[in-house]
Amino acid sequence: MKEAMLSRIGRYAFGAEPFHCDFSSRMLLSHAANCMLNAAEFHSDERGYGMTELRRMGRTWVLSRLVVEMNDMPPAYSRINIDTWVEGVMRFFTSRDFSVTGTEGQQYGYGRSIWAMIDSHTRQPVEIATVGEGIIARYVESDRPCPIKPFARIKLPPTAERAGTVTAQYSDVDVNGHVNSAKYIEHILDLWDIRWHEKHRITRLDIAYTAEAHSGDTLAFYVDDTVEGARCVSVRRSRDGSEEVEACLARLTFWTVGN
Amino acid sequence: MKEAMLSRIGRYAFGAEPFHCDFSSRMLLSHAANCMLNAAEFHSDERGYGMTELRRMGRTWVLSRLVVEMNDMPPAYSRINIDTWVEGVMRFFTSRDFSVTGTEGQQYGYGRSIWAMIDSHTRQPVEIATVGEGIIARYVESDRPCPIKPFARIKLPPTAERAGTVTAQYSDVDVNGHVNSAKYIEHILDLWDIRWHEKHRITRLDIAYTAEAHSGDTLAFYVDDTVEGARCVSVRRSRDGSEEVEACLARLTFWTVGN
Repeated sequence: MKEAMLSRIGRYAFGAEPFHCDFSSRMLLSHAANCMLNAAEFHSDERGYGMTELRRMGRTWVLSRLVVEMNDMPPAYSRINIDTWVEGVMRFFTSRDFSVTGTEGQQYGYGRSIWAMIDSHTRQPVEIATVGEGIIARYVESDRPCPIKPFARIKLPPTAERAGTVTAQYSDVDVNGHVNSAKYIEHILDLWDIRWHEKHRITRLDIAYTAEAHSGDTLAFYVDDTVEGARCVSVRRSRDGSEEVEACLARLTFWTVGN
Repeated sequence: MKEAMLSRIGRYAFGAEPFHCDFSSRMLLSHAANCMLNAAEFHSDERGYGMTELRRMGRTWVLSRLVVEMNDMPPAYSRINIDTWVEGVMRFFTSRDFSVTGTEGQQYGYGRSIWAMIDSHTRQPVEIATVGEGIIARYVESDRPCPIKPFARIKLPPTAERAGTVTAQYSDVDVNGHVNSAKYIEHILDLWDIRWHEKHRITRLDIAYTAEAHSGDTLAFYVDDTVEGARCVSVRRSRDGSEEVEACLARLTFWTVGN
Protein backbone atom coordinates (compact mmCIF):
# COMPACT_ATOMS: atom_id res chain seq x y z
CA MET A 1 0.00 0.00 0.00
CA LYS A 2 1.51 3.26 -1.13
CA GLU A 3 -1.04 5.40 0.62
CA ALA A 4 -3.15 5.39 3.72
CA MET A 5 -6.76 4.29 3.43
CA LEU A 6 -9.15 7.03 2.41
CA SER A 7 -12.61 7.46 3.88
CA ARG A 8 -15.16 4.93 2.66
CA ILE A 9 -17.58 7.65 1.63
CA GLY A 10 -16.42 10.18 -0.96
CA ARG A 11 -18.03 13.55 -1.57
CA TYR A 12 -17.83 15.30 -4.95
CA ALA A 13 -19.17 18.71 -5.91
CA PHE A 14 -20.98 19.43 -9.16
CA GLY A 15 -22.84 22.41 -10.52
CA ALA A 16 -26.34 22.70 -11.89
CA GLU A 17 -24.88 25.02 -14.52
CA PRO A 18 -27.69 26.82 -16.38
CA PHE A 19 -26.78 25.10 -19.64
CA HIS A 20 -27.09 21.67 -18.03
CA CYS A 21 -30.68 22.51 -17.14
CA ASP A 22 -33.85 22.04 -19.14
CA PHE A 23 -36.53 24.54 -20.18
CA SER A 24 -37.83 24.56 -16.59
CA SER A 25 -34.45 25.71 -15.21
CA ARG A 26 -33.92 22.43 -13.37
CA MET A 27 -31.00 20.07 -13.88
CA LEU A 28 -31.54 17.50 -16.63
CA LEU A 29 -32.02 14.00 -15.21
CA SER A 30 -29.44 12.75 -17.72
CA HIS A 31 -26.96 15.26 -16.32
CA ALA A 32 -27.72 14.19 -12.72
CA ALA A 33 -27.01 10.59 -13.76
CA ASN A 34 -23.79 11.69 -15.48
CA CYS A 35 -22.71 13.45 -12.26
CA MET A 36 -23.31 10.19 -10.35
CA LEU A 37 -21.21 8.22 -12.83
CA ASN A 38 -18.44 10.79 -12.61
CA ALA A 39 -18.58 10.72 -8.79
CA ALA A 40 -18.31 6.91 -8.94
CA GLU A 41 -15.26 7.10 -11.15
CA PHE A 42 -13.55 9.81 -9.06
CA HIS A 43 -14.18 7.71 -5.94
CA SER A 44 -12.76 4.55 -7.52
CA ASP A 45 -9.86 6.37 -9.12
CA GLU A 46 -8.71 7.94 -5.86
CA ARG A 47 -8.84 4.54 -4.14
CA GLY A 48 -6.79 2.71 -6.74
CA TYR A 49 -9.41 0.89 -8.78
CA GLY A 50 -10.60 3.48 -11.28
CA MET A 51 -10.64 3.08 -15.04
CA THR A 52 -7.10 4.40 -15.49
CA GLU A 53 -5.70 1.75 -13.14
CA LEU A 54 -7.89 -0.96 -14.65
CA ARG A 55 -6.80 0.01 -18.16
CA ARG A 56 -3.24 -0.96 -17.23
CA MET A 57 -4.60 -4.44 -16.44
CA GLY A 58 -6.65 -4.60 -19.65
CA ARG A 59 -9.90 -4.18 -17.75
CA THR A 60 -12.64 -1.66 -17.23
CA TRP A 61 -15.81 -1.05 -15.26
CA VAL A 62 -19.16 -1.27 -16.97
CA LEU A 63 -22.40 -0.08 -15.48
CA SER A 64 -24.94 -2.86 -15.21
CA ARG A 65 -27.85 -1.18 -13.40
CA LEU A 66 -28.67 2.29 -12.22
CA VAL A 67 -31.52 3.70 -10.17
CA VAL A 68 -31.95 7.46 -9.74
CA GLU A 69 -34.73 8.66 -7.47
CA MET A 70 -35.18 12.40 -7.07
CA ASN A 71 -37.61 14.31 -4.82
CA ASP A 72 -36.66 17.42 -6.68
CA MET A 73 -34.14 18.42 -9.34
CA PRO A 74 -31.48 20.98 -8.39
CA PRO A 75 -32.32 24.45 -9.75
CA ALA A 76 -30.09 26.28 -12.23
CA TYR A 77 -27.01 28.00 -10.68
CA SER A 78 -27.10 25.84 -7.53
CA ARG A 79 -24.35 23.45 -6.56
CA ILE A 80 -24.76 19.88 -5.39
CA ASN A 81 -22.70 17.36 -3.48
CA ILE A 82 -22.80 13.72 -4.42
CA ASP A 83 -21.77 11.29 -1.70
CA THR A 84 -20.93 7.84 -2.97
CA TRP A 85 -19.86 4.61 -1.33
CA VAL A 86 -19.53 0.91 -2.11
CA GLU A 87 -22.41 -0.98 -0.55
CA GLY A 88 -21.14 -4.46 -1.31
CA VAL A 89 -18.76 -6.51 -3.43
CA MET A 90 -19.58 -9.83 -5.03
CA ARG A 91 -17.37 -11.97 -7.20
CA PHE A 92 -18.06 -10.17 -10.50
CA PHE A 93 -20.21 -7.24 -9.41
CA THR A 94 -20.08 -4.38 -6.98
CA SER A 95 -22.93 -2.23 -5.72
CA ARG A 96 -22.49 1.49 -5.16
CA ASP A 97 -24.91 4.03 -3.69
CA PHE A 98 -25.28 7.78 -4.08
CA SER A 99 -26.82 10.61 -2.09
CA VAL A 100 -27.45 13.98 -3.76
CA THR A 101 -27.70 17.03 -1.52
CA GLY A 102 -27.69 20.77 -1.97
CA THR A 103 -25.08 22.98 -0.36
CA GLU A 104 -27.50 23.75 2.46
CA GLY A 105 -27.99 20.08 3.18
CA GLN A 106 -31.35 19.64 1.44
CA GLN A 107 -31.77 16.11 0.11
CA TYR A 108 -32.49 16.06 -3.61
CA GLY A 109 -32.35 12.33 -4.09
CA TYR A 110 -30.48 9.07 -4.10
CA GLY A 111 -29.01 6.58 -6.49
CA ARG A 112 -28.13 2.91 -6.59
CA SER A 113 -25.88 1.18 -9.09
CA ILE A 114 -24.39 -2.20 -9.92
CA TRP A 115 -21.10 -2.40 -11.82
CA ALA A 116 -19.28 -5.29 -13.44
CA MET A 117 -15.56 -5.46 -13.98
CA ILE A 118 -14.80 -6.79 -17.46
CA ASP A 119 -11.82 -7.68 -19.60
CA SER A 120 -11.48 -4.85 -22.15
CA HIS A 121 -10.72 -7.26 -24.94
CA THR A 122 -13.08 -10.20 -24.38
CA ARG A 123 -15.74 -7.97 -22.67
CA GLN A 124 -16.30 -10.88 -20.24
CA PRO A 125 -16.58 -10.41 -16.45
CA VAL A 126 -13.43 -10.82 -14.39
CA GLU A 127 -13.03 -11.35 -10.65
CA ILE A 128 -13.03 -8.07 -8.77
CA ALA A 129 -10.94 -9.41 -5.87
CA THR A 130 -7.92 -9.78 -8.15
CA VAL A 131 -7.43 -5.98 -8.30
CA GLY A 132 -5.10 -4.53 -5.66
CA GLU A 133 -5.30 -7.63 -3.48
CA GLY A 134 -9.03 -7.18 -2.97
CA ILE A 135 -8.74 -3.55 -1.95
CA ILE A 136 -12.33 -2.76 -2.92
CA ALA A 137 -13.68 -4.99 -0.15
CA ARG A 138 -11.83 -2.88 2.40
CA TYR A 139 -13.85 0.14 1.30
CA VAL A 140 -17.29 -1.41 1.74
CA GLU A 141 -19.49 0.94 3.75
CA SER A 142 -22.14 -1.00 5.60
CA ASP A 143 -23.38 1.65 8.02
CA ARG A 144 -24.86 4.19 5.65
CA PRO A 145 -28.29 3.24 4.36
CA CYS A 146 -29.62 4.14 0.93
CA PRO A 147 -33.35 4.62 1.54
CA ILE A 148 -34.62 3.91 -1.98
CA LYS A 149 -35.85 0.59 -3.27
CA PRO A 150 -33.41 -1.57 -5.20
CA PHE A 151 -33.68 -2.00 -8.94
CA ALA A 152 -36.81 -3.95 -9.80
CA ARG A 153 -37.07 -6.18 -12.81
CA ILE A 154 -38.51 -4.54 -15.93
CA LYS A 155 -40.53 -6.47 -18.46
CA LEU A 156 -42.08 -5.10 -21.62
CA PRO A 157 -45.14 -6.74 -23.12
CA PRO A 158 -44.78 -7.93 -26.72
CA THR A 159 -47.20 -5.15 -27.69
CA ALA A 160 -44.62 -2.45 -26.90
CA GLU A 161 -44.37 -0.16 -29.91
CA ARG A 162 -41.35 1.24 -31.64
CA ALA A 163 -41.36 4.95 -30.77
CA GLY A 164 -38.20 6.09 -32.54
CA THR A 165 -34.69 5.29 -33.69
CA VAL A 166 -31.38 7.12 -33.55
CA THR A 167 -27.95 6.33 -34.92
CA ALA A 168 -25.26 6.35 -32.23
CA GLN A 169 -22.76 9.08 -33.08
CA TYR A 170 -19.34 10.38 -32.05
CA SER A 171 -20.77 12.37 -29.10
CA ASP A 172 -22.63 9.33 -27.76
CA VAL A 173 -19.43 7.39 -27.16
CA ASP A 174 -17.34 7.89 -24.03
CA VAL A 175 -13.84 6.99 -22.81
CA ASN A 176 -14.94 3.35 -22.68
CA GLY A 177 -15.49 3.33 -26.45
CA HIS A 178 -19.19 2.46 -26.19
CA VAL A 179 -22.41 4.45 -26.00
CA ASN A 180 -22.33 6.36 -22.72
CA SER A 181 -24.79 5.29 -20.02
CA ALA A 182 -26.09 8.81 -19.45
CA LYS A 183 -26.56 9.34 -23.20
CA TYR A 184 -29.07 6.46 -23.30
CA ILE A 185 -31.02 8.34 -20.63
CA GLU A 186 -30.89 11.52 -22.73
CA HIS A 187 -32.20 9.65 -25.78
CA ILE A 188 -34.92 7.96 -23.72
CA LEU A 189 -36.15 11.27 -22.27
CA ASP A 190 -36.19 12.69 -25.79
CA LEU A 191 -38.90 10.18 -26.73
CA TRP A 192 -41.34 12.68 -25.20
CA ASP A 193 -41.61 16.27 -26.25
CA ILE A 194 -41.43 19.39 -24.13
CA ARG A 195 -45.23 19.50 -23.73
CA TRP A 196 -45.09 16.07 -22.10
CA HIS A 197 -42.19 17.13 -19.87
CA GLU A 198 -44.10 20.28 -18.88
CA LYS A 199 -46.94 18.13 -17.60
CA HIS A 200 -44.99 15.29 -15.99
CA ARG A 201 -42.25 15.19 -13.39
CA ILE A 202 -40.03 12.11 -13.45
CA THR A 203 -39.35 10.95 -9.91
CA ARG A 204 -37.48 7.72 -10.52
CA LEU A 205 -35.51 6.02 -13.26
CA ASP A 206 -34.53 2.35 -13.24
CA ILE A 207 -32.23 1.27 -16.05
CA ALA A 208 -30.43 -1.99 -16.83
CA TYR A 209 -27.60 -2.07 -19.37
CA THR A 210 -27.56 -5.44 -21.04
CA ALA A 211 -25.36 -5.14 -24.13
CA GLU A 212 -22.92 -2.53 -25.39
CA ALA A 213 -23.66 -0.37 -28.42
CA HIS A 214 -21.10 1.44 -30.54
CA SER A 215 -20.84 4.41 -32.81
CA GLY A 216 -22.73 3.69 -36.04
CA ASP A 217 -25.20 1.31 -34.40
CA THR A 218 -28.91 1.97 -34.87
CA LEU A 219 -30.74 2.26 -31.57
CA ALA A 220 -34.47 1.49 -31.72
CA PHE A 221 -36.69 2.54 -28.81
CA TYR A 222 -39.75 0.44 -27.88
CA VAL A 223 -42.19 1.88 -25.37
CA ASP A 224 -44.84 0.38 -23.13
CA ASP A 225 -47.27 2.97 -21.77
CA THR A 226 -49.94 0.61 -20.44
CA VAL A 227 -49.05 1.15 -16.75
CA GLU A 228 -50.36 4.29 -15.08
CA GLY A 229 -47.61 6.67 -13.94
CA ALA A 230 -44.82 4.72 -15.64
CA ARG A 231 -43.22 4.14 -19.02
CA CYS A 232 -41.03 1.18 -19.83
CA VAL A 233 -38.52 1.47 -22.65
CA SER A 234 -36.44 -1.19 -24.38
CA VAL A 235 -33.50 0.09 -26.43
CA ARG A 236 -32.41 -2.38 -29.10
CA ARG A 237 -29.24 -1.97 -31.10
CA SER A 238 -28.61 -3.26 -34.59
CA ARG A 239 -26.12 -2.64 -37.35
CA ASP A 240 -26.51 -2.80 -41.11
CA GLY A 241 -29.87 -4.55 -40.76
CA SER A 242 -28.67 -7.21 -38.30
CA GLU A 243 -31.08 -8.65 -35.75
CA GLU A 244 -31.93 -6.32 -32.87
CA VAL A 245 -30.25 -6.99 -29.53
CA GLU A 246 -31.45 -5.38 -26.32
CA ALA A 247 -28.87 -2.80 -25.18
CA CYS A 248 -30.82 -1.44 -22.25
CA LEU A 249 -34.15 -1.57 -20.51
CA ALA A 250 -35.57 1.31 -18.49
CA ARG A 251 -38.55 2.30 -16.42
CA LEU A 252 -39.52 5.91 -15.80
CA THR A 253 -41.84 6.65 -12.87
CA PHE A 254 -43.51 10.03 -12.93
CA TRP A 255 -46.35 12.08 -11.58
CA THR A 256 -48.59 14.41 -13.47
CA VAL A 257 -48.26 18.10 -12.69
CA GLY A 258 -51.60 19.54 -11.43
CA ASN A 259 -53.71 21.52 -13.85
CA MET B 1 -25.48 49.95 -5.82
CA LYS B 2 -26.08 47.34 -3.18
CA GLU B 3 -22.64 45.79 -3.46
CA ALA B 4 -19.10 46.83 -4.17
CA MET B 5 -17.74 46.32 -7.67
CA LEU B 6 -16.34 42.88 -8.34
CA SER B 7 -13.18 42.21 -10.33
CA ARG B 8 -13.58 42.67 -14.07
CA ILE B 9 -12.19 39.23 -14.79
CA GLY B 10 -14.00 36.23 -13.30
CA ARG B 11 -12.50 32.77 -12.88
CA TYR B 12 -14.66 29.63 -12.83
CA ALA B 13 -13.57 26.03 -12.29
CA PHE B 14 -14.88 23.10 -14.32
CA GLY B 15 -13.96 19.46 -14.54
CA ALA B 16 -13.03 17.34 -17.52
CA GLU B 17 -15.11 14.60 -15.96
CA PRO B 18 -14.44 11.28 -17.71
CA PHE B 19 -18.01 11.11 -18.97
CA HIS B 20 -17.70 14.52 -20.59
CA CYS B 21 -14.79 13.20 -22.63
CA ASP B 22 -14.77 11.42 -25.97
CA PHE B 23 -13.31 8.06 -26.98
CA SER B 24 -9.80 9.59 -26.86
CA SER B 25 -10.21 10.59 -23.17
CA ARG B 26 -10.14 14.29 -24.00
CA MET B 27 -12.88 16.77 -23.20
CA LEU B 28 -15.55 17.07 -25.89
CA LEU B 29 -15.34 20.38 -27.73
CA SER B 30 -19.08 20.79 -27.20
CA HIS B 31 -18.53 20.44 -23.46
CA ALA B 32 -15.67 23.00 -23.51
CA ALA B 33 -18.03 25.42 -25.26
CA ASN B 34 -20.75 24.67 -22.71
CA CYS B 35 -18.28 25.44 -19.89
CA MET B 36 -17.52 28.80 -21.55
CA LEU B 37 -21.23 29.64 -21.78
CA ASN B 38 -21.72 28.68 -18.16
CA ALA B 39 -18.72 30.80 -17.12
CA ALA B 40 -20.20 33.74 -19.05
CA GLU B 41 -23.50 33.37 -17.27
CA PHE B 42 -21.94 32.98 -13.81
CA HIS B 43 -19.86 36.11 -14.47
CA SER B 44 -22.89 38.14 -15.60
CA ASP B 45 -25.12 36.79 -12.86
CA GLU B 46 -22.69 37.76 -10.09
CA ARG B 47 -22.40 41.27 -11.53
CA GLY B 48 -26.12 41.92 -11.73
CA TYR B 49 -26.86 41.34 -15.40
CA GLY B 50 -27.33 37.58 -15.67
CA MET B 51 -30.34 35.83 -17.12
CA THR B 52 -32.19 35.73 -13.79
CA GLU B 53 -31.97 39.50 -13.43
CA LEU B 54 -32.84 40.05 -17.09
CA ARG B 55 -35.83 37.73 -16.81
CA ARG B 56 -37.37 40.15 -14.28
CA MET B 57 -37.14 42.80 -16.98
CA GLY B 58 -38.58 40.51 -19.67
CA ARG B 59 -35.21 40.17 -21.38
CA THR B 60 -32.49 37.62 -21.94
CA TRP B 61 -29.04 37.20 -23.45
CA VAL B 62 -28.61 35.33 -26.69
CA LEU B 63 -25.32 34.19 -28.09
CA SER B 64 -24.64 35.65 -31.51
CA ARG B 65 -21.12 34.41 -32.28
CA LEU B 66 -18.63 32.11 -30.64
CA VAL B 67 -15.04 31.24 -31.45
CA VAL B 68 -13.26 28.44 -29.57
CA GLU B 69 -9.59 27.87 -30.36
CA MET B 70 -7.82 25.07 -28.52
CA ASN B 71 -4.14 24.04 -28.66
CA ASP B 72 -5.09 20.93 -26.78
CA MET B 73 -8.19 19.51 -25.12
CA PRO B 74 -8.07 18.94 -21.35
CA PRO B 75 -7.55 15.25 -20.52
CA ALA B 76 -10.09 13.20 -18.56
CA TYR B 77 -10.00 13.73 -14.76
CA SER B 78 -8.22 17.09 -15.02
CA ARG B 79 -9.73 20.36 -13.91
CA ILE B 80 -9.76 23.62 -15.81
CA ASN B 81 -10.21 27.27 -15.00
CA ILE B 82 -12.07 29.52 -17.36
CA ASP B 83 -11.32 33.22 -17.05
CA THR B 84 -13.86 35.46 -18.70
CA TRP B 85 -14.23 39.19 -19.13
CA VAL B 86 -16.21 41.72 -21.16
CA GLU B 87 -14.06 43.10 -23.94
CA GLY B 88 -16.47 45.76 -25.10
CA VAL B 89 -20.05 46.97 -25.05
CA MET B 90 -21.93 48.34 -28.01
CA ARG B 91 -25.51 49.52 -28.15
CA PHE B 92 -27.11 46.11 -28.72
CA PHE B 93 -24.15 43.74 -28.42
CA THR B 94 -21.40 42.93 -26.01
CA SER B 95 -18.18 41.04 -26.65
CA ARG B 96 -16.78 38.62 -24.09
CA ASP B 97 -13.52 36.70 -24.11
CA PHE B 98 -12.38 33.49 -22.45
CA SER B 99 -9.10 31.90 -21.46
CA VAL B 100 -8.96 28.18 -20.62
CA THR B 101 -6.09 26.99 -18.44
CA GLY B 102 -5.22 23.85 -16.52
CA THR B 103 -4.69 23.88 -12.78
CA GLU B 104 -0.93 24.09 -13.34
CA GLY B 105 -1.32 27.15 -15.52
CA GLN B 106 -0.97 25.44 -18.90
CA GLN B 107 -2.90 27.28 -21.60
CA TYR B 108 -5.43 25.02 -23.35
CA GLY B 109 -7.09 27.66 -25.42
CA TYR B 110 -9.16 30.79 -25.77
CA GLY B 111 -12.61 31.86 -26.76
CA ARG B 112 -14.37 34.92 -28.12
CA SER B 113 -18.07 35.61 -28.11
CA ILE B 114 -20.63 38.24 -29.08
CA TRP B 115 -23.94 38.41 -27.22
CA ALA B 116 -27.13 40.33 -27.90
CA MET B 117 -29.63 41.38 -25.28
CA ILE B 118 -33.16 40.73 -26.51
CA ASP B 119 -36.73 41.21 -25.37
CA SER B 120 -37.95 37.74 -24.34
CA HIS B 121 -41.32 38.31 -25.93
CA THR B 122 -40.56 40.10 -29.21
CA ARG B 123 -37.07 38.48 -29.52
CA GLN B 124 -35.83 41.86 -30.79
CA PRO B 125 -32.59 43.49 -29.56
CA VAL B 126 -32.84 45.96 -26.69
CA GLU B 127 -30.33 48.55 -25.51
CA ILE B 128 -27.81 47.07 -23.12
CA ALA B 129 -27.14 50.36 -21.35
CA THR B 130 -30.66 50.37 -19.92
CA VAL B 131 -29.80 47.55 -17.49
CA GLY B 132 -28.56 48.63 -14.06
CA GLU B 133 -27.77 52.17 -15.26
CA GLY B 134 -25.22 50.88 -17.71
CA ILE B 135 -23.39 48.74 -15.19
CA ILE B 136 -21.94 46.44 -17.84
CA ALA B 137 -19.80 49.23 -19.26
CA ARG B 138 -18.16 49.62 -15.87
CA TYR B 139 -16.91 46.03 -16.11
CA VAL B 140 -15.20 46.36 -19.48
CA GLU B 141 -11.67 44.96 -19.27
CA SER B 142 -9.43 46.60 -21.83
CA ASP B 143 -6.03 45.48 -20.57
CA ARG B 144 -6.23 41.75 -21.06
CA PRO B 145 -5.68 40.64 -24.64
CA CYS B 146 -7.32 37.64 -26.25
CA PRO B 147 -4.68 36.38 -28.69
CA ILE B 148 -6.94 34.60 -31.17
CA LYS B 149 -8.34 36.04 -34.34
CA PRO B 150 -11.87 37.42 -34.24
CA PHE B 151 -14.75 35.60 -35.85
CA ALA B 152 -14.36 35.61 -39.62
CA ARG B 153 -17.26 35.59 -42.00
CA ILE B 154 -18.36 32.13 -43.17
CA LYS B 155 -19.86 31.57 -46.57
CA LEU B 156 -21.02 28.29 -48.02
CA PRO B 157 -21.07 27.73 -51.76
CA PRO B 158 -24.45 26.78 -53.25
CA THR B 159 -22.98 23.33 -53.90
CA ALA B 160 -22.88 22.51 -50.17
CA GLU B 161 -24.60 19.18 -49.66
CA ARG B 162 -27.12 18.11 -47.09
CA ALA B 163 -25.25 15.75 -44.78
CA GLY B 164 -27.96 14.92 -42.26
CA THR B 165 -31.02 16.03 -40.35
CA VAL B 166 -32.10 15.78 -36.74
CA THR B 167 -35.28 16.75 -34.96
CA ALA B 168 -34.66 19.09 -32.02
CA GLN B 169 -35.78 17.33 -28.85
CA TYR B 170 -36.43 18.02 -25.18
CA SER B 171 -32.72 17.64 -24.25
CA ASP B 172 -31.66 20.11 -26.95
CA VAL B 173 -33.55 22.98 -25.35
CA ASP B 174 -32.10 24.99 -22.47
CA VAL B 175 -33.35 27.49 -19.90
CA ASN B 176 -33.83 30.01 -22.70
CA GLY B 177 -36.47 27.78 -24.31
CA HIS B 178 -34.55 27.40 -27.57
CA VAL B 179 -31.99 24.92 -28.90
CA ASN B 180 -28.87 25.28 -26.78
CA SER B 181 -25.79 26.79 -28.41
CA ALA B 182 -23.51 23.95 -27.32
CA LYS B 183 -25.99 21.35 -28.57
CA TYR B 184 -25.63 22.69 -32.12
CA ILE B 185 -21.90 22.08 -31.76
CA GLU B 186 -22.55 18.53 -30.58
CA HIS B 187 -24.82 17.85 -33.57
CA ILE B 188 -22.30 19.41 -35.97
CA LEU B 189 -19.44 17.26 -34.64
CA ASP B 190 -21.69 14.22 -34.99
CA LEU B 191 -21.75 14.75 -38.76
CA TRP B 192 -18.44 12.88 -38.81
CA ASP B 193 -17.96 9.44 -37.37
CA ILE B 194 -15.38 8.26 -34.86
CA ARG B 195 -12.97 7.17 -37.60
CA TRP B 196 -12.89 10.75 -38.88
CA HIS B 197 -12.40 12.11 -35.36
CA GLU B 198 -9.57 9.61 -34.80
CA LYS B 199 -7.74 11.05 -37.77
CA HIS B 200 -8.49 14.75 -37.31
CA ARG B 201 -7.99 17.14 -34.43
CA ILE B 202 -10.23 20.21 -34.42
CA THR B 203 -8.23 23.28 -33.42
CA ARG B 204 -10.77 26.01 -33.94
CA LEU B 205 -14.51 26.46 -34.20
CA ASP B 206 -16.22 29.63 -35.45
CA ILE B 207 -19.99 29.65 -35.13
CA ALA B 208 -22.63 32.30 -35.78
CA TYR B 209 -26.16 31.90 -34.43
CA THR B 210 -28.57 33.59 -36.78
CA ALA B 211 -32.06 32.36 -35.87
CA GLU B 212 -33.51 30.45 -32.95
CA ALA B 213 -34.76 26.88 -33.28
CA HIS B 214 -37.21 25.17 -30.97
CA SER B 215 -38.14 21.70 -29.84
CA GLY B 216 -39.84 19.87 -32.70
CA ASP B 217 -38.01 21.79 -35.42
CA THR B 218 -36.15 19.83 -38.07
CA LEU B 219 -32.49 20.83 -38.30
CA ALA B 220 -30.84 20.12 -41.66
CA PHE B 221 -27.04 20.20 -41.90
CA TYR B 222 -25.35 21.34 -45.12
CA VAL B 223 -21.60 20.81 -45.43
CA ASP B 224 -18.92 22.35 -47.62
CA ASP B 225 -15.72 20.31 -47.65
CA THR B 226 -14.00 22.00 -50.59
CA VAL B 227 -11.46 23.90 -48.48
CA GLU B 228 -8.43 21.98 -47.22
CA GLY B 229 -8.27 21.68 -43.43
CA ALA B 230 -11.72 23.13 -42.88
CA ARG B 231 -15.39 22.25 -43.02
CA CYS B 232 -18.18 24.79 -43.19
CA VAL B 233 -21.63 23.82 -41.97
CA SER B 234 -24.95 25.58 -42.35
CA VAL B 235 -27.72 24.42 -40.02
CA ARG B 236 -31.18 25.21 -41.37
CA ARG B 237 -34.32 24.84 -39.34
CA SER B 238 -37.78 24.10 -40.64
CA ARG B 239 -41.08 22.91 -39.24
CA ASP B 240 -43.82 20.84 -40.82
CA GLY B 241 -42.27 21.28 -44.25
CA SER B 242 -41.90 25.07 -44.02
CA GLU B 243 -39.10 26.80 -45.85
CA GLU B 244 -35.64 26.32 -44.35
CA VAL B 245 -34.18 29.24 -42.38
CA GLU B 246 -30.52 29.36 -41.41
CA ALA B 247 -30.21 28.85 -37.63
CA CYS B 248 -26.43 28.77 -37.48
CA LEU B 249 -23.32 28.75 -39.59
CA ALA B 250 -20.06 27.18 -38.47
CA ARG B 251 -16.52 26.61 -39.59
CA LEU B 252 -14.33 23.85 -38.16
CA THR B 253 -10.58 24.14 -38.65
CA PHE B 254 -8.60 20.96 -38.10
CA TRP B 255 -5.34 19.21 -38.74
CA THR B 256 -4.86 15.65 -39.82
CA VAL B 257 -3.22 13.34 -37.28
CA GLY B 258 0.02 11.88 -38.67
CA ASN B 259 -0.07 8.33 -39.98
